[in-house]
Amino acid sequence: MSQSMVGKHAMWPKENDVIFSISGRAQAAEKAFGMDNVINATIGALMDDSGKLITMKTVYEEYKALDNCEIGAYAALEGQPDYLEAVKKVFFRDYLPEGHIRVLASPGGSGAIKLAVWNYTNEGDEVLTSDWFWSPYVSIAEEANRKVVNYQLFDENRRFNFESFKEKFVNIAEKQGRVFTIINTPAHNPTGYSVADDEWDKILDLSKEVAKDKDKKIIFFVDSAYIDFAGDDDVCRKFFKKFSNLPENVLVLVGFSMSKGFTAYGMRMGAIICISSSEDVAEEFHYSCVHSCRANWSNCNRSAMAVLSNIVNDPKKFKEYEDEKEIYKNMLTRRADVFVKEAERVGLEILPYIAGFFVSIPCDNPKEVCEELTKHNLFAVPLKMGLRFAVCAVSEDKCKKAPSIIKEALESLEVKINN
Amino acid sequence: MSQSMVGKHAMWPKENDVIFSISGRAQAAEKAFGMDNVINATIGALMDDSGKLITMKTVYEEYKALDNCEIGAYAALEGQPDYLEAVKKVFFRDYLPEGHIRVLASPGGSGAIKLAVWNYTNEGDEVLTSDWFWSPYVSIAEEANRKVVNYQLFDENRRFNFESFKEKFVNIAEKQGRVFTIINTPAHNPTGYSVADDEWDKILDLSKEVAKDKDKKIIFFVDSAYIDFAGDDDVCRKFFKKFSNLPENVLVLVGFSMSKGFTAYGMRMGAIICISSSEDVAEEFHYSCVHSCRANWSNCNRSAMAVLSNIVNDPKKFKEYEDEKEIYKNMLTRRADVFVKEAERVGLEILPYIAGFFVSIPCDNPKEVCEELTKHNLFAVPLKMGLRFAVCAVSEDKCKKAPSIIKEALESLEVKINN
Repeated sequence: MSQSMVGKHAMWPKENDVIFSISGRAQAAEKAFGMDNVINATIGALMDDSGKLITMKTVYEEYKALDNCEIGAYAALEGQPDYLEAVKKVFFRDYLPEGHIRVLASPGGSGAIKLAVWNYTNEGDEVLTSDWFWSPYVSIAEEANRKVVNYQLFDENRRFNFESFKEKFVNIAEKQGRVFTIINTPAHNPTGYSVADDEWDKILDLSKEVAKDKDKKIIFFVDSAYIDFAGDDDVCRKFFKKFSNLPENVLVLVGFSMSKGFTAYGMRMGAIICISSSEDVAEEFHYSCVHSCRANWSNCNRSAMAVLSNIVNDPKKFKEYEDEKEIYKNMLTRRADVFVKEAERVGLEILPYIAGFFVSIPCDNPKEVCEELTKHNLFAVPLKMGLRFAVCAVSEDKCKKAPSIIKEALESLEVKINN
Repeated sequence: MSQSMVGKHAMWPKENDVIFSISGRAQAAEKAFGMDNVINATIGALMDDSGKLITMKTVYEEYKALDNCEIGAYAALEGQPDYLEAVKKVFFRDYLPEGHIRVLASPGGSGAIKLAVWNYTNEGDEVLTSDWFWSPYVSIAEEANRKVVNYQLFDENRRFNFESFKEKFVNIAEKQGRVFTIINTPAHNPTGYSVADDEWDKILDLSKEVAKDKDKKIIFFVDSAYIDFAGDDDVCRKFFKKFSNLPENVLVLVGFSMSKGFTAYGMRMGAIICISSSEDVAEEFHYSCVHSCRANWSNCNRSAMAVLSNIVNDPKKFKEYEDEKEIYKNMLTRRADVFVKEAERVGLEILPYIAGFFVSIPCDNPKEVCEELTKHNLFAVPLKMGLRFAVCAVSEDKCKKAPSIIKEALESLEVKINN
């Protein structure tokens, strides 16, 4: 055996990130064959029609106008006070739930998930999320020796599979007392689904039922990284009000990210928000998470915090930002509409898409399908149960072409396998 | 008992950070009594004589000239390739050790320490560092259920206490097989000490002796956050060469930070560097740390990476940066010289200071002494065994005044206690 120096918990397979690998191959193809001849649907960021990253003018002008001290000084461990207020304002808008709300800065949405999983589960615990999910949930869980288990996201009516959710939820509650559930909504990555308000009612009613046993601890982590591209900014926030006045042993944590809504992916700025009817629980949240901040990354990128505060606290700037975002949201909607309609026309099955950066295509052998697609210069991300196609990164024209290419690839592979 | 929702490992005392608290009080005093009448020695950043944060022109002009895409796009999980090369270049300069070197981006130096402690110790392990140490080492260790133990930093000759180091080192090696040691050098926080080259020889000879038992795993984490203000840029790097060709079971990890050397504290950019004679160990380092990155903060602040690469890879820009840094290094040296000389003159005992941001004053009851000092509008940070005085943040004039104020406060407290 070769020399090893890390602890046992730190030994991982020597694998490279799937998304980064396929993304690299797509870029190589773009160079070799020209941008027009490649469909690169691997990137989880808004790209313009020429394949260039979109960076909002209102955000970057603010960023570059910052005083050096607003960039260079250490921020507070929990985040700058005006940033925390701005997050609350821009995230909840008119739908602030009643209760004790606390906000704490994190490096992107990822940092918020880490804070939640680390502090609100115990070693060996099962963490619940749907079977279509963002794969880093597994990295975050397994790094700390937690295990992700899945319920089926969709039922036969292409709606939230409450029965499957309930079965797993109750099972974990009985087994480990503590139920930690990640729900990525609205505009779920990778499917584009948003949990409907009546579906939330069922989920919360179930949690209240289980919470009657005061020994149970129920934690929801709502990953809302895509909320700024989730359709109508009001409609998609209505469900927040449902988090008011929940039992003390039902805690809602929310992940906020500047990455998508402010085209600020590389700035690594986000927040974790706590909503509890108990002041004790909210206080505990603060001190547990501050300790984790200090022990993991210390404080966060101060310039990004200043950008958010400056925009959100200035009505004129906020209006301009909103107007600019609207343009890109419309662009995204057009692309997705074209893809969904064309998929329907050619008979390509896709998962229920409502809004967001991605469309998912269920299939067997996703890796082989992706490989087959590369022959047609179409690059998508293979997931466990299908493909992820990033409409956020692909022009309308290409979104129209893609479904038939995928459909044909699936059929040709089927023929190969059957022979 | 009040409602609790976190895991047992995540319950922490509801305490606020000592440094942030005293720093807040200092700022309040500056407002109330005027900047001229307050000595604020709490801040761990270079401040000009008027108390304003110093932000290097060469760094911030580069920062503001970046293309939006270099700010907005996600960076690679392990850091941008050109950044990793630039770190290696600027950190080691002419003193690159022989061996397998790997570099990986981290949010500041703190992130690097986290990566090292998490991946290279096991739960319950003891982590060794000196009795004068940067307190977040404890936060990082205890967050993951590791325990910091201390050797005495200084012997009776005011030099590195090798006997104390050896005793603890051997004891841990026998007890737990794995010895993980944090050495903060050069320009140690909080004392300003730098481990001398002959002291490094002793440390490494001991580690080679212990490493003859191939079951022992010896890991040094060299925290070099202050290296850019550690005196001569060449002289203070010579010891890196000693890390060449160590046994395979002796691993050296180094923490790099842009915070001080590039006045980029708020950007949260650093790196962890691995030096090993074993390619396997270096490969393992990469994959363990990449997994941790993905699971904690995903990727790092891309703009800061670009700034470093652009400066380091352009000889003209690098020369300008070096010239500018020299001005501030000289300023710091003058301040520290004045403080040290005046301390000697008035008979105030301080710890051996060689270079860096801080001077330490050993004393009993540090909290009470700090409290006493606030009455004289002098604000310093109370440590376990004394005070930390930030010469980096205090003008030469005030550095001259401070020692006698501290001396008097110590004496008046002594009188109080003896009465």
